[in-house]
Amino acid sequence: MEHRLITLTTDFGHQDPFVGIMKGVIFGINPNARIIDLSHGIPPQDIRAGALALCHSAPFFPRGTIHVAVVDPGVGSERKPILIEAEGCYFVGPDNGILSLAVEGKRINWIIELSDETYHLKPRSATFHGRDIFAPVAAHLSLGIPASEFGEPVKDYVGLHLPEIGRTAGTIHGEVLYIDGFGNLVTNIRQRDLQAHRPQNSSISLGNLTIRGISPNYSSAGQNDYIAVFNSWGLLEISCFKGNARARAGAKIGDRVEVRFTKDAQGRTL
Amino acid sequence: MEHRLITLTTDFGHQDPFVGIMKGVIFGINPNARIIDLSHGIPPQDIRAGALALCHSAPFFPRGTIHVAVVDPGVGSERKPILIEAEGCYFVGPDNGILSLAVEGKRINWIIELSDETYHLKPRSATFHGRDIFAPVAAHLSLGIPASEFGEPVKDYVGLHLPEIGRTAGTIHGEVLYIDGFGNLVTNIRQRDLQAHRPQNSSISLGNLTIRGISPNYSSAGQNDYIAVFNSWGLLEISCFKGNARARAGAKIGDRVEVRFTKDAQGRTL
Amino acid sequence: MEHRLITLTTDFGHQDPFVGIMKGVIFGINPNARIIDLSHGIPPQDIRAGALALCHSAPFFPRGTIHVAVVDPGVGSERKPILIEAEGCYFVGPDNGILSLAVEGKRINWIIELSDETYHLKPRSATFHGRDIFAPVAAHLSLGIPASEFGEPVKDYVGLHLPEIGRTAGTIHGEVLYIDGFGNLVTNIRQRDLQAHRPQNSSISLGNLTIRGISPNYSSAGQNDYIAVFNSWGLLEISCFKGNARARAGAKIGDRVEVRFTKDAQGRTL
Repeated sequence: MEHRLITLTTDFGHQDPFVGIMKGVIFGINPNARIIDLSHGIPPQDIRAGALALCHSAPFFPRGTIHVAVVDPGVGSERKPILIEAEGCYFVGPDNGILSLAVEGKRINWIIELSDETYHLKPRSATFHGRDIFAPVAAHLSLGIPASEFGEPVKDYVGLHLPEIGRTAGTIHGEVLYIDGFGNLVTNIRQRDLQAHRPQNSSISLGNLTIRGISPNYSSAGQNDYIAVFNSWGLLEISCFKGNARARAGAKIGDRVEVRFTKDAQGRTL
Repeated sequence: MEHRLITLTTDFGHQDPFVGIMKGVIFGINPNARIIDLSHGIPPQDIRAGALALCHSAPFFPRGTIHVAVVDPGVGSERKPILIEAEGCYFVGPDNGILSLAVEGKRINWIIELSDETYHLKPRSATFHGRDIFAPVAAHLSLGIPASEFGEPVKDYVGLHLPEIGRTAGTIHGEVLYIDGFGNLVTNIRQRDLQAHRPQNSSISLGNLTIRGISPNYSSAGQNDYIAVFNSWGLLEISCFKGNARARAGAKIGDRVEVRFTKDAQGRTL
Repeated sequence: MEHRLITLTTDFGHQDPFVGIMKGVIFGINPNARIIDLSHGIPPQDIRAGALALCHSAPFFPRGTIHVAVVDPGVGSERKPILIEAEGCYFVGPDNGILSLAVEGKRINWIIELSDETYHLKPRSATFHGRDIFAPVAAHLSLGIPASEFGEPVKDYVGLHLPEIGRTAGTIHGEVLYIDGFGNLVTNIRQRDLQAHRPQNSSISLGNLTIRGISPNYSSAGQNDYIAVFNSWGLLEISCFKGNARARAGAKIGDRVEVRFTKDAQGRTL
């Protein structure tokens, strides 16, 4: 039998028992469920941060895994609860973009609106579909019930538009996309966007700050010095060694980042 | 065989390894234990918040579940460590009220003082009974040892007195009972307390703030507007859509909340 | 078969999905893995706090447990990734001292540099060896692969030097070693360091603050009063009953603590 792990990604935080309640619902339906927390520290209502967390985590989980993501400011409104089956994995949550980055570019088998109330808790609240819809659907999925049983197929899901990079001669423009708990400033500039260039022959700027070259790792700098690295998500990141780049630079999501190349790929000065 | 999950609810927070240590003790006794975290973010020493978290979570767990709750400022003093078996579920913790809301109104089979040291860690500290008493008792319970083996039956447990609502003609008075991590202000006014009334014909006030009517869900309001809803615990809650009502209103636990009805159940203006 | 639990101790915090990603990698290799979080709230880059958390937790876990600890400011540099097998338990992490306190004084079977890339993720990042080296090595270990398969034996590991206590006639000098999430000030003075003395005949001082005697438990004091106790780690600790000693005393790690004995073990006044 397939192993169907269930992962949870929410903005429920760590004070309240909301995540624990979802787990109770799951175990009530599948006593042998195995549940893994991806993150419950997504900033409140930050659908994009949740979608980024999910899309950078899901590829490391085995086929058959059921990913539940609940960042859901529109709970109880007309936004649809959905299930997406893509390349043997399952994504369950509100249709507000939170699932979209994880399934982008994947072959999609089903997009199902979770309309069959057989699989919901009763009575259903208007404020906690994590408990009343998404947890019980995930639990039933983990028992092997096929995706198509949970409701009517729909044609599309709500996507997210991530900011795109810009290019001019000798520069790439991007922005801060995500800031992690260490204060590292993760940009939307991918390692492969710089493939035609030698990263050592570049300077990276953010506001008044300029960093020379891209370092092989965090500890190439002195303590609390700024550094640019390609991080584990394949994205350009501005960090402070043993420090907090966000706090030190006063940076925030959306801040503009520029990579300027001083030489071309053949080593000729630009 | 019964599935006996073990849940943990504590004020131990997320910095220290105290919860992990409890899990080590449990696995040392029952290598097949299955442990679920309800919350470890209960505010330090806040027995009532812990009791509320537990009582709103326990009903979603399967029969046989063992709920361990440790908010225990009196650890090592004369407060008793107890175990309550109620309707096929088990509640383990200090006898200071933390278990009380979860078992209120349930048929209680046993209240046991955990006096049999066979089931405790040795030597026993005076500061961490979560590790030394509650974790090993829960682990032995999960192996199927009957409740009555853990010590002497006692007649009663320490209860908590939650504030009660008041009523006058046309109004219900309550207070803020709990504030969740989103900043939602959860009151002690239950949905069923308003059953004789039409919620749309009411105004809800907290300090200077007045909200018209009770909304079907959070997103019925504009961003950062106040709203009143019945939440997933069946309680009246004051929220800000995509905002934080606690921060915005400067509210705190115990703040008075009033529901005023503008019409009676027959639609006559009051 | 042995039960091989995997524990995780990191400074990854609770906002990002980094811990969840490590779990995905582990389940991808061993679908039956059982993973326990010790703490992910170690202060960023605080190797000593991580080492203390691990060394006070590991003794409570069953033989065969695999402890993974990742506080790793030097990731991607020349610091070695290692595995230590000691008395039937396994310790996996960077060779920067984080594992050292947990294995101190134990019989060590193997210290292995994790040089065999067969057991690493490919491609390997320079910023997240938790995902790329430590998680997959732990997962393979949990499948029963012997320690010696993972690379070349090395002779030693990097140790940590904890501050030692000093003694003069009638006093013991120590310092604040660790501050827990409740604000309790944990010192490096062990219960056994005071064995020759009667703790009730002592005064404990920290800055301007003086506490008379060592109490049997937290609740021996009035609310928010200072108290000294021997904590669950066997260390002298300064606390405030239902308060936060760190905040109230403005104390920090490294602050000097002195125990002065007013009588000797025979009860004679000093």
